[in-house]
Amino acid sequence: MDLAELREQVCQANLALVRAGLVTLSFGNASGVDRDTGALVIKPSGVAYARLRPSEMVVVNLADGAVREGTYRPSSDTPTHLALYRRYPSIGGVVHTHSSFASSWAQAGRPIPCLGTTHADHFHGPVPVTRPLSAVEIEGEYERETGNVIIDALERLGLDPLEMPAVLVLSHGPFTWGAGPAEAVENAIALEAVAAMAYRTTNLERAITPMAALLQERHFRRKHGPAAYYGQPAEHR
Amino acid sequence: MDLAELREQVCQANLALVRAGLVTLSFGNASGVDRDTGALVIKPSGVAYARLRPSEMVVVNLADGAVREGTYRPSSDTPTHLALYRRYPSIGGVVHTHSSFASSWAQAGRPIPCLGTTHADHFHGPVPVTRPLSAVEIEGEYERETGNVIIDALERLGLDPLEMPAVLVLSHGPFTWGAGPAEAVENAIALEAVAAMAYRTTNLERAITPMAALLQERHFRRKHGPAAYYGQPAEHR
Amino acid sequence: MDLAELREQVCQANLALVRAGLVTLSFGNASGVDRDTGALVIKPSGVAYARLRPSEMVVVNLADGAVREGTYRPSSDTPTHLALYRRYPSIGGVVHTHSSFASSWAQAGRPIPCLGTTHADHFHGPVPVTRPLSAVEIEGEYERETGNVIIDALERLGLDPLEMPAVLVLSHGPFTWGAGPAEAVENAIALEAVAAMAYRTTNLERAITPMAALLQERHFRRKHGPAAYYGQPAEHR
Amino acid sequence: MDLAELREQVCQANLALVRAGLVTLSFGNASGVDRDTGALVIKPSGVAYARLRPSEMVVVNLADGAVREGTYRPSSDTPTHLALYRRYPSIGGVVHTHSSFASSWAQAGRPIPCLGTTHADHFHGPVPVTRPLSAVEIEGEYERETGNVIIDALERLGLDPLEMPAVLVLSHGPFTWGAGPAEAVENAIALEAVAAMAYRTTNLERAITPMAALLQERHFRRKHGPAAYYGQPAEHR
Repeated sequence: MDLAELREQVCQANLALVRAGLVTLSFGNASGVDRDTGALVIKPSGVAYARLRPSEMVVVNLADGAVREGTYRPSSDTPTHLALYRRYPSIGGVVHTHSSFASSWAQAGRPIPCLGTTHADHFHGPVPVTRPLSAVEIEGEYERETGNVIIDALERLGLDPLEMPAVLVLSHGPFTWGAGPAEAVENAIALEAVAAMAYRTTNLERAITPMAALLQERHFRRKHGPAAYYGQPAEHR
Repeated sequence: MDLAELREQVCQANLALVRAGLVTLSFGNASGVDRDTGALVIKPSGVAYARLRPSEMVVVNLADGAVREGTYRPSSDTPTHLALYRRYPSIGGVVHTHSSFASSWAQAGRPIPCLGTTHADHFHGPVPVTRPLSAVEIEGEYERETGNVIIDALERLGLDPLEMPAVLVLSHGPFTWGAGPAEAVENAIALEAVAAMAYRTTNLERAITPMAALLQERHFRRKHGPAAYYGQPAEHR
Repeated sequence: MDLAELREQVCQANLALVRAGLVTLSFGNASGVDRDTGALVIKPSGVAYARLRPSEMVVVNLADGAVREGTYRPSSDTPTHLALYRRYPSIGGVVHTHSSFASSWAQAGRPIPCLGTTHADHFHGPVPVTRPLSAVEIEGEYERETGNVIIDALERLGLDPLEMPAVLVLSHGPFTWGAGPAEAVENAIALEAVAAMAYRTTNLERAITPMAALLQERHFRRKHGPAAYYGQPAEHR
Repeated sequence: MDLAELREQVCQANLALVRAGLVTLSFGNASGVDRDTGALVIKPSGVAYARLRPSEMVVVNLADGAVREGTYRPSSDTPTHLALYRRYPSIGGVVHTHSSFASSWAQAGRPIPCLGTTHADHFHGPVPVTRPLSAVEIEGEYERETGNVIIDALERLGLDPLEMPAVLVLSHGPFTWGAGPAEAVENAIALEAVAAMAYRTTNLERAITPMAALLQERHFRRKHGPAAYYGQPAEHR
């Protein structure tokens, strides 16, 4: 992929987070990766969204995290993004937000249970929460360790990152990912919608149990994998 | 009715769902039917709302569900729409959304009780929830069976679909309908407003009981049936 | 006052309710009165807000409720407005909405307690809820009786309508009023804000007690009556 | 600083509160101060936001509160702003709102606990609530006393106002501040986001405990003080 094209995609992904109402002030960031050239493109740290341009995206080496191009400092969460891309070759975009409902579940330390088909369409089972970071992890390379506990959360449960494209970082907020930046944004939007409905469902019915496993499976497979029949065939996408 | 006119109505109905805030990503769909020519017009599956055009609506045979016109695949929920149109000749439009508050009641498995006049103006009694689908129904023709449990929910309670133009599908979300696509959209909007107020009322007062039956009846009949006096006489509508 | 000017004010008041997010579909209406000519100007019943024009407002006799000018039927809630204007010569505008938080309190049958200065700035004490309508009242002149129970709620508590410019109709929603249509709208907006905060406060703290009486009084008198010092002196308003 | 420039900044800060959804009707005000000339610039009292112009801002003496320039009366909360500026030379902007979630915590009389990194990024510990005002304070110079209880709340806990740039006034709402008007607005926006998430977290998990102290510290120091590494170095801000 052309680096100019990736800059454009990553800039659009960051702006899409704002349009979707997932971003307050400058919390949140989106990135994309070009596996061929080992380039990670990410939002600059603490820059106002209103003035975000493709040319302002920062290009970082996937291998060592060094800035390759860009006048700005990359997002301070860059080491978290790097950890995820390095561990999972299948992902091409990562998003981090402090979206209100998903972060409320993260703050409560509770996985989001699968209570309905909106959830089952996007996430294969409950959305996990990370374990607490240790004192050493917090005082050490904190952002890289945040990536590591996300990976731990997926691996502890044996999850494929493309079937569970979201993890809640305890006392923090969600990270989502996907095949590219646009898919990572879509998963961030779906996660916030799912988190809001799960919050309201739980308030209505404290003793709620997850939806039928078979129905979860049917919905997930309607949209994912070889038997998917939701949406258009490849030539119309 | 002209098929071009119905395409336009159905396209407008889908866009109205977005404007009303009932749609996240591409969840949700609206359809309309022309009884004379046996044509169902419905949104294509998984197409972004931003680019929706009347010409992209898919035309399907009401009788056998075969695609009559259209380059796109119809909504994967088409068999649910077909089941409703076939069973109820009085309805001319169907809408499905995952709107946040109504879906939260569906996820909680609780009918929406009639707590006030906004509800009584639109829905004649509590809005029902479907029974769980069986394993055979989930693994079989799932979307058609979804239509069947909606019909079951209405028939179990002896409800006329134009007096109860909404059912919550368990662990999923609402379907609404009406004389045409615009009326189905109006009922989807009213349902979400009613679901939000019932949610908040229930949080304020856990022991809430339904409103007085006589008042429910008065409000429903103010807007529906021969003694209706809400709105304008036919010549001004 | 010129009737054309009052039509304009009433039309603007109805549109302001939509802009403030207090209206779903066509629920809600605003009116104004000209005491000199005994004319009530009110929104037509069930007309879409998008096409509302001053010329479409309906003019009704304050004395007997007969339509004086207008091609449309007046709001079906007109008898409620008439009852309030006839009983209280001090009010010049009335608004009815089904705004979400205020209606949730009405549905719960609970007065909105005075929990903070936003409330105390606008409403002198808890916002009352009406008693249930009797079967005879519901089956009789229902809308006029709705006005009567609002008046009952104020008189039972000895309230001046300009110091308590809002009442919640049980199982229904709020009516507000003021010196003119714009003030009635302002009170409807303040009521919804106050209702939302009281809802959230109650969820945070179930055992909440009203704010200190002296502080309530200080805030109300900062804005109302001879010692008011909030806002600009008359020449700058 | 040029007074025209400060008028512009203060006007922009007031308008930014509206754009951020923190203001209903005319509740809320922002001010800024020029230490060199001892001038406080503040929003006029009760003027509609739609017509706010820099020329309408009121200039008041920091020393004695007398109006130096302006045709309008200054915000009735001016004595609260004055008290804060006089006590804390480090602050250059103050904001007051009745934003919905933060005011709900103020009405509940509960400090906002630090439950996640969004909070820790902006506020160094739980956001305090003031003690009740005494009868003498309410009946005396009420607005100045409001400033005094804010100062009390900070001093009782030994807090630096730039590390805790927000206090909730009991039964009222939040005051925030910062190096200038824009920073005070940013803190008001962050506070409302944090208040909403803490509300939802508390509803999900009644027994929630604050986040790990070490993680709070790490996040606060990522953005504040000599070891900060969030955002851009000074030359790019």
